[in-house]
Amino acid sequence: MKRHIKIIGIGSYVPKRTVHSDEIDRKISAPNGWSEKKSGVKKRYFIEEETASYMGAHAAINALDQAGLTFSDIDCIISASGTVEQAIPCNASLIQKQLGLEQSGIPCFDVNSTCLSFVTALDMISYPIDAGKYKNVLLISSEISSVGLDWSQKESSILFGDGAVAVVLTKSTTQSGIISSHMETYSEGAHLSEIRGGGTKIHPRLYDENTAGDFLFNMNGRGIFKLSYKYLPAFLERLFKNTSLSMSDINLVIPHQASASAMKIIRKKLEVPEERFMSIIENYGNMIAASIPMALYEAVKQDKIKRGDYVLLLGTSAGLSIGGIILEY
Amino acid sequence: MKRHIKIIGIGSYVPKRTVHSDEIDRKISAPNGWSEKKSGVKKRYFIEEETASYMGAHAAINALDQAGLTFSDIDCIISASGTVEQAIPCNASLIQKQLGLEQSGIPCFDVNSTCLSFVTALDMISYPIDAGKYKNVLLISSEISSVGLDWSQKESSILFGDGAVAVVLTKSTTQSGIISSHMETYSEGAHLSEIRGGGTKIHPRLYDENTAGDFLFNMNGRGIFKLSYKYLPAFLERLFKNTSLSMSDINLVIPHQASASAMKIIRKKLEVPEERFMSIIENYGNMIAASIPMALYEAVKQDKIKRGDYVLLLGTSAGLSIGGIILEY
Repeated sequence: MKRHIKIIGIGSYVPKRTVHSDEIDRKISAPNGWSEKKSGVKKRYFIEEETASYMGAHAAINALDQAGLTFSDIDCIISASGTVEQAIPCNASLIQKQLGLEQSGIPCFDVNSTCLSFVTALDMISYPIDAGKYKNVLLISSEISSVGLDWSQKESSILFGDGAVAVVLTKSTTQSGIISSHMETYSEGAHLSEIRGGGTKIHPRLYDENTAGDFLFNMNGRGIFKLSYKYLPAFLERLFKNTSLSMSDINLVIPHQASASAMKIIRKKLEVPEERFMSIIENYGNMIAASIPMALYEAVKQDKIKRGDYVLLLGTSAGLSIGGIILEY
Repeated sequence: MKRHIKIIGIGSYVPKRTVHSDEIDRKISAPNGWSEKKSGVKKRYFIEEETASYMGAHAAINALDQAGLTFSDIDCIISASGTVEQAIPCNASLIQKQLGLEQSGIPCFDVNSTCLSFVTALDMISYPIDAGKYKNVLLISSEISSVGLDWSQKESSILFGDGAVAVVLTKSTTQSGIISSHMETYSEGAHLSEIRGGGTKIHPRLYDENTAGDFLFNMNGRGIFKLSYKYLPAFLERLFKNTSLSMSDINLVIPHQASASAMKIIRKKLEVPEERFMSIIENYGNMIAASIPMALYEAVKQDKIKRGDYVLLLGTSAGLSIGGIILEY
């Protein structure tokens, strides 16, 4: 069932501080150029004073501006992020507060499937928007990866960046909408990328020099890639099933910006030419759930997609999950 | 728009260890009987070795058993909890793994609005179920509050308990469904109940004796109550608007089990007689998002509701949010 929704505004916010790959090389005591060669990331942004709610609020203001709406038009705020600002309450409430909407009553909640949070939340909220429950929804991915990186694990730490993207969603009166969506989770890969601590199992009170690593991001990149690669072809078949489309009909593939090398292999596997495969990782790094919407933001900005185009949002996330949406933009 | 969904199975799991109020009194050096008098909680359950995914998986097995289904019938797993087992990945993936469904591909993600997570997730997933996207959904609230309590803050620490509840949801072919749902968030109350640390703002690496309190639950019960009480009447008007029902038509109110005293005042404010207002707090404490489904579980078990009854799920959560669902059970 197609859900008639439309992205009528998209905005982003990146931290003031730009971190170039030579700074990363020095940080991990690698030869100059090593991290860029390995990750494909030339620069990314790291927060200094910015919080996730601050970044999310600024992205929201920009998205709303583009949509030509005011906050009084918004009737739902969803945070779709793999990280949280604080354990309680949810990010969406903190963003509402940051926006000065403390007494607005606009409902706020979070959806989390790590790097796929934006895709999952977009899919979930498309049903109530199509049904008329919400008129204008703010969907925000605001991620701070930099505080949780393990710099002794070079493979993962050189990949990530911080930042936020927001979209305004409304019911479509044109052909714009979600044609198909699909998600598969294979928890055989649940521990291939994780932060073991920080929740109820290894509570922060257990933090000491022996447990410090439990509170940092740990990734087995090779394991994730192998598992994703194995399940991807059948996943895509199921995503395209019941549509009249095939991969060659897709005007632009917007993948999760996991790592430059993985994206390259996946692109070749999918037989998608470079010009129809959006890559922004060299300028932003992997921004967790904000990666896919940031690539969408750049695609819109760079006129790589126009209304009516078929866009494929596609990614993997910790879990391990694979998710995708075929969008008629 | 009514969403035709039906709860076809409900199951629970509580930790092996029962904690009676006299143990709490000793823990906080209060006179015998003090904590029970203050909180209305006679006993609650605290985990020893159990994890959130372990509890959630056991609740899921019980729910599925009641529904007469097997895991091969399930096509979506949602964790709706205010706490997480670990920072990454989401709880739902960890529950999938605990259930031995590592290679099932069943999509897994989390929805979080703290104590209202179950209500929010039930509302959200009702649209795709009604639309035929998912056939049988496992919705699980599994909460471990005990590790995050601040025992120097007696007002909050004496209230909470651990445990899990799961429901199996399917499309209804009868009148069962969600008649109305509504949520309002007032972030003027965002810091009235919170855990400031544990996320990207106060990362666990900052844990020391000075910051220890930032990683524990902090609550201004009076502030929450005042704000909820102020917004509740208009909230209920909006929840019942566009239905043909009023509070007197509701067969059973299932409130969040926040605290016995708050529940009593709210019940009187709503003019609901005691027999139509479900209270389980004396036997379980406040189980965060698991409270409302646990009260539903007990209501079903105790034959307090039957098919066709009008049930009101109603609660407040950190955020501050008020949420409700009018369910034709």
